[in-house]
Amino acid sequence: MDIVLLGSGNVATHLGHALARAGHPIKQVYSRTRVHAQTLAASLGAEATNDLADIRTQAHVYIVAVKDDALATVVAQLPVALKGMVIHTAGSVDMAVLAATKDYGVLYPLQTFSKAKAVDFSTIPIAVEASDEAALVRLEALAGSLSDRVFRCDSQQRLSMHVAAVFACNFTNHLYAIAADILSEHGLDFDVIRPLILETAQKAMEHPPKEVQTGPAVRNDVHTMEKHLALLKVNPALAQLYRLISKRIG
Amino acid sequence: MDIVLLGSGNVATHLGHALARAGHPIKQVYSRTRVHAQTLAASLGAEATNDLADIRTQAHVYIVAVKDDALATVVAQLPVALKGMVIHTAGSVDMAVLAATKDYGVLYPLQTFSKAKAVDFSTIPIAVEASDEAALVRLEALAGSLSDRVFRCDSQQRLSMHVAAVFACNFTNHLYAIAADILSEHGLDFDVIRPLILETAQKAMEHPPKEVQTGPAVRNDVHTMEKHLALLKVNPALAQLYRLISKRIG
Repeated sequence: MDIVLLGSGNVATHLGHALARAGHPIKQVYSRTRVHAQTLAASLGAEATNDLADIRTQAHVYIVAVKDDALATVVAQLPVALKGMVIHTAGSVDMAVLAATKDYGVLYPLQTFSKAKAVDFSTIPIAVEASDEAALVRLEALAGSLSDRVFRCDSQQRLSMHVAAVFACNFTNHLYAIAADILSEHGLDFDVIRPLILETAQKAMEHPPKEVQTGPAVRNDVHTMEKHLALLKVNPALAQLYRLISKRIG
Repeated sequence: MDIVLLGSGNVATHLGHALARAGHPIKQVYSRTRVHAQTLAASLGAEATNDLADIRTQAHVYIVAVKDDALATVVAQLPVALKGMVIHTAGSVDMAVLAATKDYGVLYPLQTFSKAKAVDFSTIPIAVEASDEAALVRLEALAGSLSDRVFRCDSQQRLSMHVAAVFACNFTNHLYAIAADILSEHGLDFDVIRPLILETAQKAMEHPPKEVQTGPAVRNDVHTMEKHLALLKVNPALAQLYRLISKRIG
């Protein structure tokens, strides 16, 4: 399918390259910032534009992978004449934001993307939703050319996935950062805890997390928790977080 | 070195097998529960006992890997005549608990151990501390026969490592469990988020966590956070945790 890509951030970049590798010609890349459009377009063999009025009208799919709060504005400025399906890639934006277009849908890859790091799209779960069954079937085919793990879900389920991802990814990374701070304050390198972090994630690949919960809180080891709180008393906000999560676990 | 192992839990089991593989004869295994002592001893080619009065006095090292709150009691009951070094393996117990013995130290492997899962000890960071320099050198040699990553630290640093591990391992696993609950409440399988969990941990292998923080909180994306809180309003305690961690990140 001929594709026009709108956006030049991490999702647009990784998705664009994955689509190109899967054999879909990326015809055009739009970004508000001309040089960003040009850089990504060059790497995809596509045309670049920073003007929504210049968007080609004959592509099969328009992927709008811009910041959530820019989505509605970008979609409202798409040429009226365009015929292809318009899709967005956001976890927490209802599909209804696209309702003014003819065919539309959502393709949400449940993964975190970094500029520097290549990802293997074939194992990324991709949630799809579309305006009608025919559009959904086409979207499933497109997503299926990228990943073996495509599944249907509605906007509310997608939102719940994004919330779950905030806990399991964003908040988890913050807990890693807290650990790094605590170690650093005691003259220790973050490296000493890296094997433990990886093992904890790997355990969750094989077990339901609740069944493999370890630590003083689940053992109700009050004496150890008191020692930990004594060490944290220099940072009352951190001690509060320790208490709150321990209470949830215990 | 000839070793007597006291304890039969996950740490005692994994450590016992790693020591045996490294060529240290495990002479005896003690557990309060006779059948536990017998099971572990049989797998290590050792003698079993459930009576501290029967502990052999001629070993080089006595590893006391029992529950934290049993440590002092077990150590107090060790035969007065024993000559070897007595060490414990706990993150949050001060080395001073062993001060009544002659030579003593702590060997703390910074990893989480499960009954079912084999671990490669060679990559596990091991913190060591001992009663004097001579004991420390011997302990470093013992730990060095298990792992390439042995380092010295004092009891306060070890406590800080344990606190850091609670955040980066125990609390992280609880966040995974929260994600599993949210997904389940919306008819979705935990499987959809597993690749994200692994990628998040792998990112922390290569970067300082603070530098790769993603998500609505670090972007100060208030609109998305409001949508997430709306979804969480059925569970006020969870919404409170979401707010607290987002505020720390933002």
